[in-house]
Amino acid sequence: MAPATPRVVVKLDLKKRPWEQEQPLHNRWHPEIQPVGEVKAGEFFRVEMVDWTGGAVKDDDSAEDIKSLDLSTVHYLSGPIRIVDEDGVAAKPGDLLAVEICNLGPLPGDEWGFTASFDRENGGGFLTDHFPCATKAIWYFEGIYAYSPQIPGVRFPGLTHPGIIGTAPSKEILRIWNERERQLEESEGTPEWERIAKEAARTIPGRENGGNCDIKNLSRGSKIYLPVFVEGANLSTGDMHFSQGDGEISFCGAIEMSGFLGLKCEIIRNGMKEYLTPMGPTPLHVNPIFEIGPVEPRFSEWLVFEGISVDESGRQHYLDATVAYKRAVLNAIDYLFKFGYSKEQVYLLLSCCPCEGRISGIVDSPNAVATLAIPTSIFDQDIRPKTRKVPAGPRIVRKPDVMKSTYDGKLETTRNPSSSSYS
Amino acid sequence: MAPATPRVVVKLDLKKRPWEQEQPLHNRWHPEIQPVGEVKAGEFFRVEMVDWTGGAVKDDDSAEDIKSLDLSTVHYLSGPIRIVDEDGVAAKPGDLLAVEICNLGPLPGDEWGFTASFDRENGGGFLTDHFPCATKAIWYFEGIYAYSPQIPGVRFPGLTHPGIIGTAPSKEILRIWNERERQLEESEGTPEWERIAKEAARTIPGRENGGNCDIKNLSRGSKIYLPVFVEGANLSTGDMHFSQGDGEISFCGAIEMSGFLGLKCEIIRNGMKEYLTPMGPTPLHVNPIFEIGPVEPRFSEWLVFEGISVDESGRQHYLDATVAYKRAVLNAIDYLFKFGYSKEQVYLLLSCCPCEGRISGIVDSPNAVATLAIPTSIFDQDIRPKTRKVPAGPRIVRKPDVMKSTYDGKLETTRNPSSSSYS
Amino acid sequence: MAPATPRVVVKLDLKKRPWEQEQPLHNRWHPEIQPVGEVKAGEFFRVEMVDWTGGAVKDDDSAEDIKSLDLSTVHYLSGPIRIVDEDGVAAKPGDLLAVEICNLGPLPGDEWGFTASFDRENGGGFLTDHFPCATKAIWYFEGIYAYSPQIPGVRFPGLTHPGIIGTAPSKEILRIWNERERQLEESEGTPEWERIAKEAARTIPGRENGGNCDIKNLSRGSKIYLPVFVEGANLSTGDMHFSQGDGEISFCGAIEMSGFLGLKCEIIRNGMKEYLTPMGPTPLHVNPIFEIGPVEPRFSEWLVFEGISVDESGRQHYLDATVAYKRAVLNAIDYLFKFGYSKEQVYLLLSCCPCEGRISGIVDSPNAVATLAIPTSIFDQDIRPKTRKVPAGPRIVRKPDVMKSTYDGKLETTRNPSSSSYS
Amino acid sequence: MAPATPRVVVKLDLKKRPWEQEQPLHNRWHPEIQPVGEVKAGEFFRVEMVDWTGGAVKDDDSAEDIKSLDLSTVHYLSGPIRIVDEDGVAAKPGDLLAVEICNLGPLPGDEWGFTASFDRENGGGFLTDHFPCATKAIWYFEGIYAYSPQIPGVRFPGLTHPGIIGTAPSKEILRIWNERERQLEESEGTPEWERIAKEAARTIPGRENGGNCDIKNLSRGSKIYLPVFVEGANLSTGDMHFSQGDGEISFCGAIEMSGFLGLKCEIIRNGMKEYLTPMGPTPLHVNPIFEIGPVEPRFSEWLVFEGISVDESGRQHYLDATVAYKRAVLNAIDYLFKFGYSKEQVYLLLSCCPCEGRISGIVDSPNAVATLAIPTSIFDQDIRPKTRKVPAGPRIVRKPDVMKSTYDGKLETTRNPSSSSYS
Repeated sequence: MAPATPRVVVKLDLKKRPWEQEQPLHNRWHPEIQPVGEVKAGEFFRVEMVDWTGGAVKDDDSAEDIKSLDLSTVHYLSGPIRIVDEDGVAAKPGDLLAVEICNLGPLPGDEWGFTASFDRENGGGFLTDHFPCATKAIWYFEGIYAYSPQIPGVRFPGLTHPGIIGTAPSKEILRIWNERERQLEESEGTPEWERIAKEAARTIPGRENGGNCDIKNLSRGSKIYLPVFVEGANLSTGDMHFSQGDGEISFCGAIEMSGFLGLKCEIIRNGMKEYLTPMGPTPLHVNPIFEIGPVEPRFSEWLVFEGISVDESGRQHYLDATVAYKRAVLNAIDYLFKFGYSKEQVYLLLSCCPCEGRISGIVDSPNAVATLAIPTSIFDQDIRPKTRKVPAGPRIVRKPDVMKSTYDGKLETTRNPSSSSYS
Repeated sequence: MAPATPRVVVKLDLKKRPWEQEQPLHNRWHPEIQPVGEVKAGEFFRVEMVDWTGGAVKDDDSAEDIKSLDLSTVHYLSGPIRIVDEDGVAAKPGDLLAVEICNLGPLPGDEWGFTASFDRENGGGFLTDHFPCATKAIWYFEGIYAYSPQIPGVRFPGLTHPGIIGTAPSKEILRIWNERERQLEESEGTPEWERIAKEAARTIPGRENGGNCDIKNLSRGSKIYLPVFVEGANLSTGDMHFSQGDGEISFCGAIEMSGFLGLKCEIIRNGMKEYLTPMGPTPLHVNPIFEIGPVEPRFSEWLVFEGISVDESGRQHYLDATVAYKRAVLNAIDYLFKFGYSKEQVYLLLSCCPCEGRISGIVDSPNAVATLAIPTSIFDQDIRPKTRKVPAGPRIVRKPDVMKSTYDGKLETTRNPSSSSYS
Repeated sequence: MAPATPRVVVKLDLKKRPWEQEQPLHNRWHPEIQPVGEVKAGEFFRVEMVDWTGGAVKDDDSAEDIKSLDLSTVHYLSGPIRIVDEDGVAAKPGDLLAVEICNLGPLPGDEWGFTASFDRENGGGFLTDHFPCATKAIWYFEGIYAYSPQIPGVRFPGLTHPGIIGTAPSKEILRIWNERERQLEESEGTPEWERIAKEAARTIPGRENGGNCDIKNLSRGSKIYLPVFVEGANLSTGDMHFSQGDGEISFCGAIEMSGFLGLKCEIIRNGMKEYLTPMGPTPLHVNPIFEIGPVEPRFSEWLVFEGISVDESGRQHYLDATVAYKRAVLNAIDYLFKFGYSKEQVYLLLSCCPCEGRISGIVDSPNAVATLAIPTSIFDQDIRPKTRKVPAGPRIVRKPDVMKSTYDGKLETTRNPSSSSYS
Repeated sequence: MAPATPRVVVKLDLKKRPWEQEQPLHNRWHPEIQPVGEVKAGEFFRVEMVDWTGGAVKDDDSAEDIKSLDLSTVHYLSGPIRIVDEDGVAAKPGDLLAVEICNLGPLPGDEWGFTASFDRENGGGFLTDHFPCATKAIWYFEGIYAYSPQIPGVRFPGLTHPGIIGTAPSKEILRIWNERERQLEESEGTPEWERIAKEAARTIPGRENGGNCDIKNLSRGSKIYLPVFVEGANLSTGDMHFSQGDGEISFCGAIEMSGFLGLKCEIIRNGMKEYLTPMGPTPLHVNPIFEIGPVEPRFSEWLVFEGISVDESGRQHYLDATVAYKRAVLNAIDYLFKFGYSKEQVYLLLSCCPCEGRISGIVDSPNAVATLAIPTSIFDQDIRPKTRKVPAGPRIVRKPDVMKSTYDGKLETTRNPSSSSYS
């Protein structure tokens, strides 16, 4: 009856380099990048993706490839894909594109990934002042689980998701992006600006078109509502993550992998006007919204670390959630270090395991409070503070008098409790 | 503005005996029991209840009170309460009564309960052939948690609920109940019939009016839809449970306590016709339906025991879910016995802890398959089968080569990993 | 470094018939069926399976194939697989085999399944007296979701699992099974016995070796502990279900499909003695136990139907959970019928959707109480009883006086509430 | 046997003003505030609290009390409570104090609360530039649920928690706090500093001693590990919240109420050294850690709003999570405005409903990405974007041919589908 298998719209050959693929990949957001395929609303289709570095990182025990990675070429994206409605009419600027992530996973035969931190001089990361060196951990997948030879003692189910999914910007959107990022340079003059300037319209930041939002909950069953800025919407995606912690703190912090998405799109005509709001006089509508899917890994026990907006030198920052979150992460690293891990191991682990980063208090001046919640079951030891001695194994439980049988018949269970077999 | 506190419709004095209360209690279902109060649809009100035995069981270490309990007087119910709509018009036969359980808990100053098994000759229970003696365990409450001196090593949050909630039957319903229970006697002649016969129209069984359904999920936030058989609905409730496992296997198996309910009712006019279906030519509509509330305790790890419909003697029973569940429970008792508990302790524990009893397979002849799922976190030891050695405490994790720094700057984290402090 | 992909131990070709496969399938439990492969403890491996009928049911709109299905040939199982430890020493009788289900799913290119009810004269089912005719519904998969052209208006994520997983019985176990099933015939003489007798040692029932337990929670991440009765354990599996409700009530009630498992085994030496208990003087140890995995679909809202052990004719059955569950299911069917479904559609839907069947009360004589909980979000309409009128769409919320601004500055938000834009 | 009721260590009379209470309240952190009570480790005890304003806000429909609130007197805290071990030896500096929140709730007879936003000139809030006026909403409690006459159309279960719980600082800690907050004034000269300076050692910010962390997940069953800086630990608590969203954005943003805590403490001797790490050369150990409790409200469907670190004027901020979260909140307000709420209503609602604020991406320069997740079930309308027309009520589902019976017996279900009653 119906086709039992999704149509493969983007097909990759992992034995080829990114630029050798039959369908070209791209690494910039631009309205004029030509679609590599077209799908109809309601159609269930499949897109394959290389990892964000296009295969530059190897499954080995050296971080040299991370140290020397050319960050000017990332991220390699699959697409764009032109979306039309059931009558063949393309999505139009002003529509909303609803993209349901029906399925996703690693590509068969390539079930592994990597987590890494960059050198301070080549990429850096959230804690690069504390961890200025390139490091790398390899993860192998056993179905839903990942484990790493470099970080023994942990194993966890992945909350797999694409780091990047977005629609093409219009020329005007592109101009606004470039202009505001140029102003950042002039007004703040951050040392990283040289890099940022070169990356304008690059794929690194999350933006109003979706982009590299790195939201770990965009997993199986979630539905994202993206604005449409160009005819056909021109949907692109990439940067697959087997798992990621909130913040993706080490920058190359997810378990990076190649992979596929099984997608289904719907067009909500004029949805931007109906549901979103432009920012002031610009055509720049607000950021995407999404619904969370029903099969996220379930954890019931969490250990939570707090941080406030006082930095490592003791300096106070006024309601600064970034500083507060940095402190929460550093507190967690210090804590787990006491359980036998190196701090580098924990830095990578908190980048990629399913931990949650929360903005808990943002109004109690002068301190923002952020929290980092870690599911305890990912460890093979009990990482909670110990408040009492727990016997190490089976033990004889006291059989108090109250359990003594009051039955006056033939059976006397309390004398030979183990004899009450059911034979 | 609005009243900030629920109106107390049934108020009890725990220092008095059941029959001394100002508002009479009742222990039978009958259309002519007079209401003790009246509430309006939409009103938030409070009902207090004695425990099901009316205070006959003591907070001590003897099971003598259980052994000699007079089962002819239970359960003591609060009510009936007459329900009227916002215009003062009473609920009518054929309506549905939606009862939302907004709140519940033990009565202040009486935060304890008991779990017991009866003698085979006085009450029995699901496994009375294996556990023919009266036993008793006392539970103390620490807010959401319960612990027992008689069953050390476990502590769990309660899924508190009323064992009994129901509307008054009409005379015709009463006649049908009595008739069908009389037929059971004649056709099957179970040895328990003498007792059952005397209990006709008693409060022991769950019935079409709700009654003693002992559904552990009727907790905070749940909403139950009850049929209305008499004018005013005449809602009664009682038999509060701090916690109960599916099946309430030892009969006095929940953590029995006194308590209160905070309720809110709505009348769905003609709801029985709209939503329920009469059984054949009788006025007996099908059983209540309900929605589960949003604050049940959350457990993510369960150990599950299977049972099939082959009894302890090896005899095969054709697709018999009762036998299958009995086997699942016995298997769990045998298993936990190996962790240091007596079998009597486990029998009581599985009666009252938040374990789930499932009908897993009911068509694969000749065996029904039932399962019993136990949340592992209620134990202070790890009760899972051990498949590998886990180090007993903090340990040094191997720091493999791949973690070696490749950074050629001043910092050399790998030499002094512990020196990367943030000061 | 490590192999990035599971080794395929059983490889199938779906274009071939069951008996044409290169590695033979089997449809009986017997100690002497020869292993088709061998795996080491700790190895991550893959097993492929045909659907339980071996491809006899077609993706079309006729139930003729169900009506005429030859039930004497099912279930087609993959295996047995011989399990050895890391030193190559086989699992031995008395060990426990821990099998972790790391992954599972449909086979690529075959992403569809079927749910069916049999004719009363050929297979029957839990409600065959009410639904005596063969019916069939086809389900298509969109990643985690399934939908059916025959049962429109529902779509749900699957809790995918193998219906059958088990180890080979020893000769003595086989003899016990055959003996007890022969006794069932003689003592009860059920009309189905002719069929059962022929099926002795067949794959239909769940048994002490695991077998056709049809437990819907044996899904991704779960770990099952199976007894070992023969050297090498001889693990077999099959009967893949994309989804199933507790009870699998229509017998062919899951969404039946072909599929694969990604498995990992560990051997717990002497685990049967350590963790299980033999039943009386026989070598028949109790049923398998298992741990539930962390990625089951998450539902927060459930509508629950009760049933008591009074059958459709009004006859009372003494604490009979099978009758109580049947009544709960019939009540749910009657209820959902009022929302526009045919009763046949609901019968199939409740067989395969992720509904939960519970034994709620099993001691309140004479009535057992069972419940059936249905997640409300699988329907595209609101199936809860309506207790108040909810406006059909966006509406203007009253802006009460209390919200009136008290600010005496320039802004006056209440006059032009919509003008407080952020531009 | 054991006492069945927690000992009330701090008892309040809500008819008295804060300064008239028998046991004095306090509103500063200071080592020399004298304990008002003492408890032993392991003891289950109760502490009562006024709301954070000490009763200054009334249950009426005017925001005048909010507009003129004297913020120099808040928060009114209960305690300090001196903690000793089972031998009567006080907690000592360097220990960790484990505080388990076994229970909490509103005080009987006072089951209501308020959410408010302050005037920009008196307190302000996270979005005070957009909402500069004092507003107030009253919430009434129906057990676990809260509803507000000022924000109709929503009702939700509370995740009740104390906004403030902490131990007394030592003199040295106090000096460090004052010094670093003085530096903030000098270096940044924020306009709010006049207020902050006066508040030094005030209760407004969360700090290393716990303090006003406003973490919504510190609810029933959670356990918090607090550093001990003075002999006896001197535990104080207050600022009860019936519910709060992450960030408590409107500053008086939780549902503020009076209430009680049921607590249990344990002393982990030398726990600060064992589990925490001092910050550089100071005695200032890192922030508290805690475990989440098992009965948080359960929501399965969330609508999530993204924000990036580009402010309302279009200006780019470098990896600023505070700006990103502000944008996510503003996006949510704009969105919900389209469903009939005023923006002021949504501002208060997002302050107090159980929404989650996440730091999703913090490394993708120049944009931080924050998300705000709102549980959809708190609304009585469907707030998701509509991607297809859903019929408004019951409807007839197509009964396709495939469901046609193939049974050749007497029953013909498809002709009279509604006649297959079970009578």
